[in-house]
Amino acid sequence: MIIDCHGHYTTAPKALRAWRDAQIENLNTPELGPKVSDLKISDDEIRESIELNQLARMKERGIDVTIFSPQASFMTHHIGDFNTSATWAAICNELCYRVTQLFPKNFIGAAMLPQSPGVDTSTCLPEMRKCINEYGFVAINLNPDPSGGHWRDPPLGHSYWHPIYLEMIALDVPAMIHVSTSCNDCFHTTGAHYLNADTTAFMQCLTSDLFAKFPALRFLIPHGGGAVPYHWGRFRGLAREMNIPDIHQKLLNNIYFDTCVYHQPGINLLTEVIPAKNILFASETFGAVKGIDPDTGFYFDDTRRYLKAVDGLSQQEKEMIFEGNARKVFSRLNARFPA
Amino acid sequence: MIIDCHGHYTTAPKALRAWRDAQIENLNTPELGPKVSDLKISDDEIRESIELNQLARMKERGIDVTIFSPQASFMTHHIGDFNTSATWAAICNELCYRVTQLFPKNFIGAAMLPQSPGVDTSTCLPEMRKCINEYGFVAINLNPDPSGGHWRDPPLGHSYWHPIYLEMIALDVPAMIHVSTSCNDCFHTTGAHYLNADTTAFMQCLTSDLFAKFPALRFLIPHGGGAVPYHWGRFRGLAREMNIPDIHQKLLNNIYFDTCVYHQPGINLLTEVIPAKNILFASETFGAVKGIDPDTGFYFDDTRRYLKAVDGLSQQEKEMIFEGNARKVFSRLNARFPA
Repeated sequence: MIIDCHGHYTTAPKALRAWRDAQIENLNTPELGPKVSDLKISDDEIRESIELNQLARMKERGIDVTIFSPQASFMTHHIGDFNTSATWAAICNELCYRVTQLFPKNFIGAAMLPQSPGVDTSTCLPEMRKCINEYGFVAINLNPDPSGGHWRDPPLGHSYWHPIYLEMIALDVPAMIHVSTSCNDCFHTTGAHYLNADTTAFMQCLTSDLFAKFPALRFLIPHGGGAVPYHWGRFRGLAREMNIPDIHQKLLNNIYFDTCVYHQPGINLLTEVIPAKNILFASETFGAVKGIDPDTGFYFDDTRRYLKAVDGLSQQEKEMIFEGNARKVFSRLNARFPA
Repeated sequence: MIIDCHGHYTTAPKALRAWRDAQIENLNTPELGPKVSDLKISDDEIRESIELNQLARMKERGIDVTIFSPQASFMTHHIGDFNTSATWAAICNELCYRVTQLFPKNFIGAAMLPQSPGVDTSTCLPEMRKCINEYGFVAINLNPDPSGGHWRDPPLGHSYWHPIYLEMIALDVPAMIHVSTSCNDCFHTTGAHYLNADTTAFMQCLTSDLFAKFPALRFLIPHGGGAVPYHWGRFRGLAREMNIPDIHQKLLNNIYFDTCVYHQPGINLLTEVIPAKNILFASETFGAVKGIDPDTGFYFDDTRRYLKAVDGLSQQEKEMIFEGNARKVFSRLNARFPA
């Protein structure tokens, strides 16, 4: 079985965006609507949005299951207040839940949280519990910068985040650390902010005692870990300067990297420097890069192809990356998809 | 000849830091000092700080010349106002100038600018001209985020930066795009902020018409280009989504990457995906990572060793990376060091 641990509902019917636009228009007058019930999306519309897109690609590429969450760039936690985010997260999660119900063999959910800059993170717990316990989701997406490129909330080692960590452990779910749209003109969303956030999150973990405090915590750092594997020597050296003799011991029982790296040399490097046990297959298909690479004739985001071509991995290691590691990190997967 | 294009005076005598501390203490009462003349550093102190450190390593590694600028993390442009930065930059540049006078065969300067957040960049021009014309410096360091991790100034494509670009072209010098210390708790300075800034700067160039407007502009993106080469497929794909068919044509006549990547797999990837003509040798020795890699027994920052070991480069390409490219990008080098 091949499990893609990083998919977003980027192809949701247009009514979703229209609803969000209306919500933003009435940010200061929410009594003018829209109501949650104003959003009308039929099962047929959902089916079509998936069958023609994500599911078609999964079939072409032999991918069995995708861990599926609301569109990351659409979370925009910086907009409005907690109530704005709470309503919006509930709508987006419910839509993903419907996808998982319509395609129960191919999709399982990961929850967007109703984060809002500066707001106590325990406000996220009801939505989180609903998604895990009622919708059968297996993970959350945690935005380390709800301010959207201004980085005004505390780093991940800070107690600000503890309510979410405690609940993750209680529910036995991992978090993918994933920012949303940048509203800072300096950062292009998918070309700079996403990758920067991955590197930043890794370094926040290295400089904190987070995993000593919460040894059961599991973080997936997406986009191949940002700049981290490419600069693995730098990070190993920085760790030693901080009197952390073994970066593996400090971080690699808790941190995992996905394979959303869109060329062969990048996947080669990732699998050369990061232990196979810490790598999870992912493609983020219908994400930042949708086109075909003219140099290869294949989709940039067809990461399965790159992984298959890696020389330095054994068959057993490839199976770990394609399936086994996901079953460990997203442990709730196993109930729905027995090995 | 081997030219290291990325060195900072990180080993300056302690009196320099004490002077800066005193300046910061009297930020609001500059009339209380310190005066520039209060800083006393003898030639012997400078000699010792270089001979025991940078020069010793250069000799061990067979590096002939280092392009040498004030310590990057020490620029801290976010502190005080323009006058604060102007005095501090002048002091730091003069100290580097003295290094280049004491060791004229081994060091040539690159200027720190007296940037200050939100301040018109034409205020930097007198210091820039002095360094190039009087001190014989061959480049500038340009901080794309003088706010120190808050990214409050405009992106590099904005006209805010044009006065500096016009002067760079007039003086025929390149800029290394290098941030300083992060005062945002989210970003570790050398583990996150530096690498993020490299990626961010590259993306700012991709999304602007900067090099169409200023075809003679030359940027060196340090630290191996941040996350860029590792995600080269992503950047090529993003460019195509923006209707930029050829990222090489758009950026690689103006952007260069250094080799400050501290392990063999990273240097292998850099040299595999980025054309040799766009790579310049550098080590940033006595920078972020000073220790020895226990896995190899050699210094993490001994990047010459990694480059020598790369299989995929011809001897001619290696010579370009070690010397020829630096002579093109830092064209003023040639007057002092004829080929």
